[in-house]
Amino acid sequence: MDQKQLAMEKHREWQGKIEVVPRAPITNMEELAVAYTPGVAEPCLAIQREPELSFDLTRRGNLVAVITDGTAVLGLGDIGPTAGMPVMEGKCALFKTFAGVDAFPLCIDSKDPQVIVDTIVRIAGSFGGINLEDISAPRCFEIEAELKKRLDIPVFHDDQHGTAIVVGAALLNAARLTGREMGTLRIVINGAGAAGISIAGLLLEMGFGDIVLCDIRGALYRGAEWMNPAQAAMAERTNREDRRGTLAQVLAGADAFIGVSRPGLVTAEMVASMAKDPVVFAMANPTPEILPEEAKRGGAAVVGTGRSDYPNQINNVLVFPGVFKGALAVRAREITDSMKVAAAHAIAGLVGEELAPDYILPAPFDPRVAQAVANAVAGEAVRLGLNRRLPKEG
Amino acid sequence: MDQKQLAMEKHREWQGKIEVVPRAPITNMEELAVAYTPGVAEPCLAIQREPELSFDLTRRGNLVAVITDGTAVLGLGDIGPTAGMPVMEGKCALFKTFAGVDAFPLCIDSKDPQVIVDTIVRIAGSFGGINLEDISAPRCFEIEAELKKRLDIPVFHDDQHGTAIVVGAALLNAARLTGREMGTLRIVINGAGAAGISIAGLLLEMGFGDIVLCDIRGALYRGAEWMNPAQAAMAERTNREDRRGTLAQVLAGADAFIGVSRPGLVTAEMVASMAKDPVVFAMANPTPEILPEEAKRGGAAVVGTGRSDYPNQINNVLVFPGVFKGALAVRAREITDSMKVAAAHAIAGLVGEELAPDYILPAPFDPRVAQAVANAVAGEAVRLGLNRRLPKEG
Repeated sequence: MDQKQLAMEKHREWQGKIEVVPRAPITNMEELAVAYTPGVAEPCLAIQREPELSFDLTRRGNLVAVITDGTAVLGLGDIGPTAGMPVMEGKCALFKTFAGVDAFPLCIDSKDPQVIVDTIVRIAGSFGGINLEDISAPRCFEIEAELKKRLDIPVFHDDQHGTAIVVGAALLNAARLTGREMGTLRIVINGAGAAGISIAGLLLEMGFGDIVLCDIRGALYRGAEWMNPAQAAMAERTNREDRRGTLAQVLAGADAFIGVSRPGLVTAEMVASMAKDPVVFAMANPTPEILPEEAKRGGAAVVGTGRSDYPNQINNVLVFPGVFKGALAVRAREITDSMKVAAAHAIAGLVGEELAPDYILPAPFDPRVAQAVANAVAGEAVRLGLNRRLPKEG
Repeated sequence: MDQKQLAMEKHREWQGKIEVVPRAPITNMEELAVAYTPGVAEPCLAIQREPELSFDLTRRGNLVAVITDGTAVLGLGDIGPTAGMPVMEGKCALFKTFAGVDAFPLCIDSKDPQVIVDTIVRIAGSFGGINLEDISAPRCFEIEAELKKRLDIPVFHDDQHGTAIVVGAALLNAARLTGREMGTLRIVINGAGAAGISIAGLLLEMGFGDIVLCDIRGALYRGAEWMNPAQAAMAERTNREDRRGTLAQVLAGADAFIGVSRPGLVTAEMVASMAKDPVVFAMANPTPEILPEEAKRGGAAVVGTGRSDYPNQINNVLVFPGVFKGALAVRAREITDSMKVAAAHAIAGLVGEELAPDYILPAPFDPRVAQAVANAVAGEAVRLGLNRRLPKEG
């Protein structure tokens, strides 16, 4: 049986990858009277008096909504909200498996950013955090920005920020391994959608200095007329040498390539045109911009992809469970850029002295990862005073 | 420790009465590749081609949303959406405990019926059914009616229909016990909100003939100017003798009293004014319209309340788990009045030959109840052709 058949068979067998189970025992009349009427009136009244208690007296304090509109699901595109649900359920299963965070999937049947925002704002009182997922660019920028304004709980578009954080971690270690300085590293990012723009923004926050962002029309530069507003804003902050031209042209001499685009766009010759010992992160899924063996043939010193069958899998499963675990632990009001930077450093730091061309990131099932990310995020939230409480001991 | 303190302590200890757990094992890279990327693309594409498959390939086929706006929570009134969440979580725990149905609580931060309807319609693709809860009348009528029009999955306002079904079951057995005919039974319902109006409607469907509905201004009758539209519509179908006056006045000579109103409105003298061997269901919570000992002093032959510390607890926990279990089993498109009638007969039928003044309903923890209700609802859905599939064996 091939993997596709296996996946279908398993999904039929599971009948859903998550389920909702009771934490309160309800096996007799006494327990019913405590968990339900009349006992339940007390926590209700307590929350009415002090809304913050909803985090203690309901599951809210450990609960994230995983929300999509189905417009950019995996590499499949706009398949619609209900068809996106298997991905959302999978994500929820990962939240619990990797970080003990409860997560529940919701799909929203609208493509109107304002409708999506309003819908989420109205149900946000049930949740401790909002993980946006697989929403197409540039709508996702507007939706996230508006939600951050209107909500007092963390909002995190994982396709943007989860990807940016794990790329940031990988690039920190790749720079260390190849003896490069962050401030002068010349980076080309191909793909100027949600992930590419977010990666560029986070790398700037981390102190990486010279970034050129490309899309299908080549390098983004100040004043290019074909850019959307998010691209235009990022063009103001990147491409400090005002480079222009195709991906192949701007890649010549660059230290690092970061692909969040499409299969096969990069050749061994293009890698050979880069600086000595270049870094190549080819993350198009399932087929990378260039296969690792080809990138190495072009001289790449470090290669990463999104795939599990090559070394250096750059996967945001290293990120989102711990980010929300940390944010929920201190009841952070938001997730800031500096928390994302802290998360990237925490992930990179786990590699330590074992750093090698085939080991720049911890493995997805490394049990240290979620807690390290959570500690970094929670610590930064406390430092910024964006926490509602201190983390509990133990 | 009194019950209120115990309830608070337990709610603090539980930190939520439900949690979300994986059904799919994700313990290594192979399992990750099946449950998440790249394997998850297959069920996504399958649902895109055939949306109905969302019931098989995600949890949707066994999943109910328990939704409130917090406007009529228990007897506490309009305490707001987040403060209503402990009740919703309790309900979700009951769904799983009693019927194996997954249920997830959502509160909606709006009091505008149209906004509430739109919000629910937009997220309905994640769920197999919608259980509305603790929404104030008459808004709840409009919200439910509109949702039933716009959605192709069951929508069920439990405060209305769950209550009506269990009252219908109790009245069937009380009539049998006291040797009364359904068609001529004279019934007075006190409380013309969501529950009272729904009880009146279902009793009519069941064939109970002579019903007078009262609210604080006395009996509802055709043309009374103070009624809301839902009350006016019910006044057209009830009170066939055009009785007018206070509760005490219309209760004189009646066979059955059904209270969904407020504590202490009925006296032993009022019960004594009813027909011989009257039936008294005093369901105000936590204190009934009349205490059972007082009702018996007035001559009541059968007394039921909402309380677990008296016999004949009339509690919709007998109803909603099985109703949704049955509806989901055949993927019913809606829940009709005839399904509710079938559910009432199924509950009443479980009492059988043990019928007695102190045993007119099965106990909440009677393990036969949910399946009997489910079978009745599923069977009626199939009879009406409102099922999407036949129930599975076993």
